[in-house]
Amino acid sequence: VSATARSTAAPSSGEDDDAIVAGLVQEAREGKPRAVARLISLVENGSRLLRPVMAALAPGSGGARVIGLTGSPGVGKSTTTSALVKAFRARGDRVGVLAIDPSSPFSGGALLGDRIRMNEHALDEGVFIRSMASRGHLGGLSATTPQALRVLDAAGFDVVLVETVGVGQSEVEVAGLADTTVVLLAPGMGDGIQAAKAGILEIGDLYVVNKADRDGADATVRELKHMLTLGEDTAEDGAAAVAPWRPPVLTTVASVGTGIDEFVTDLDRHRAWLTEGGELGARRTRRAAAEIESIALATLRGRMLDVPGGAGRDELARAVAAGKLDPFSAADSLVASLTDR
Amino acid sequence: VSATARSTAAPSSGEDDDAIVAGLVQEAREGKPRAVARLISLVENGSRLLRPVMAALAPGSGGARVIGLTGSPGVGKSTTTSALVKAFRARGDRVGVLAIDPSSPFSGGALLGDRIRMNEHALDEGVFIRSMASRGHLGGLSATTPQALRVLDAAGFDVVLVETVGVGQSEVEVAGLADTTVVLLAPGMGDGIQAAKAGILEIGDLYVVNKADRDGADATVRELKHMLTLGEDTAEDGAAAVAPWRPPVLTTVASVGTGIDEFVTDLDRHRAWLTEGGELGARRTRRAAAEIESIALATLRGRMLDVPGGAGRDELARAVAAGKLDPFSAADSLVASLTDR
Repeated sequence: VSATARSTAAPSSGEDDDAIVAGLVQEAREGKPRAVARLISLVENGSRLLRPVMAALAPGSGGARVIGLTGSPGVGKSTTTSALVKAFRARGDRVGVLAIDPSSPFSGGALLGDRIRMNEHALDEGVFIRSMASRGHLGGLSATTPQALRVLDAAGFDVVLVETVGVGQSEVEVAGLADTTVVLLAPGMGDGIQAAKAGILEIGDLYVVNKADRDGADATVRELKHMLTLGEDTAEDGAAAVAPWRPPVLTTVASVGTGIDEFVTDLDRHRAWLTEGGELGARRTRRAAAEIESIALATLRGRMLDVPGGAGRDELARAVAAGKLDPFSAADSLVASLTDR
Repeated sequence: VSATARSTAAPSSGEDDDAIVAGLVQEAREGKPRAVARLISLVENGSRLLRPVMAALAPGSGGARVIGLTGSPGVGKSTTTSALVKAFRARGDRVGVLAIDPSSPFSGGALLGDRIRMNEHALDEGVFIRSMASRGHLGGLSATTPQALRVLDAAGFDVVLVETVGVGQSEVEVAGLADTTVVLLAPGMGDGIQAAKAGILEIGDLYVVNKADRDGADATVRELKHMLTLGEDTAEDGAAAVAPWRPPVLTTVASVGTGIDEFVTDLDRHRAWLTEGGELGARRTRRAAAEIESIALATLRGRMLDVPGGAGRDELARAVAAGKLDPFSAADSLVASLTDR
């Protein structure tokens, strides 16, 4: 199969499909919530319209400011997201929210609790909230989150908040997706060593200790600041055009709005820093690279199951499980079958 | 490049290398801790000896019983692991421990705290403990964990405990690696909805509420049992040869040894269930499939950066970030360049 034949092998959409896509994209660009919702559903369900939709959305994207919020269960992510929505709305920004919930057989994707917390924005046309399941994806984020982001971007949202549960990998992933990554903590969620374990000290552009009216908030802030200082790059920055970013540690009580103004000010400050130093473009190129890689790897992973003229993944796995073959030789054989035809 | 040429393209080890590998594998099979440690280091460092080592270890593997322990920071994973080590040692089993810590610039991989907690086993030759960093891997587990497991398996350890931090993805990964997956919780770590969010209800073979002497332990157990019941498969199991496994919910105070005997009894009960129904073989084949896939994808990912005769990942990413190309078309082009030469 030649490269040309392969790249046109995807099911081609008929004239009707083209008209549907053009119509939806047009309506989404006008900010119609139903068109936005429908496009995200197409994206989530892996519809055959996914590719034409993405192709139609590509031109002129990149206007939305993407802020990732992450932290362990119980730190108050949804409440904080809701407070940020309110603050950005107050200055006239249109705000999109993607809440990524690890799937659960009990929730069927998103959990009721989040929806209830977000309810105060339900009647605001300038706010679009979507919960997405993360089922079946290799990382904690939904495989379709980058595409849903593109939909909201194309629909002209000024700010998109991506909220992820998680300690560990999903935080790293949200850092890959967002222009600005906010790590939320709460007092008494574990000592400093535990925080370091969770790997959060490497990914935050801002750290927010929420529920700061609780006992232990000062200690958590102090400890976090200390650990961030330990991790600072001590190399000379003299040659850089822009001073390096030092992640601030803020305190909030999101449920009553305390500290949210300062939080938004620091988000703006980080946004300005990203733009000045050219880091915004670099982050977005990295994001696109990860997205392309993820789509390409999913394609290749699919092909591994049924390899024409060679042993597929599962046949090789049985040989490895039986001790007849080592996993590296099996992988070599799989890669060779995939790439040399 | 033909399949044959590609598969022999890996650097070939000379006679000295062969002798080193044969010697180390022999000593590891005799249970010499230094040889085991050296083999794991070779595996972790991606030494050119990795492939010959894996090939030498493949025959006769599969004797070790692999138990995964996972849970949020602060539930007492290391203390529980230590208590299990003691229990298995008391009946004469040789025990290996792999503790996977998310990397941190402050820890240089593993954290001192864990090492201190494990110190009581430092002089026991029947115990081998290794902390592994998870830096740079797509998931929460170290990329080299499956290979380190193979080393401990070949070295004749009866039980291998794999301890992972994490809420979310790394738990799912450890479930993929282990014969038996234990999810640890502690009282008051968040309400039921939070537990469901973390996705833990789908992966545990055993649930252990540690620190059960604390307030709220009964409520946590009750709630967990309730949620597990909600998630139970209600389909008829009449045709199955072996009754389905219902994950038990246990309570422990690992720091003083309370509940550990019952814990080990249930681990044994699960082991027997795995063997009777053929599920052990199925799990191990799935594990090998994931391992092969992961190695093959890493190879393919590496090739994406520099594609002879086509645009590489980063070149395509710049076009996507600039809105000139959509990510699916970019991925198609990348896959075509990789597979059609």
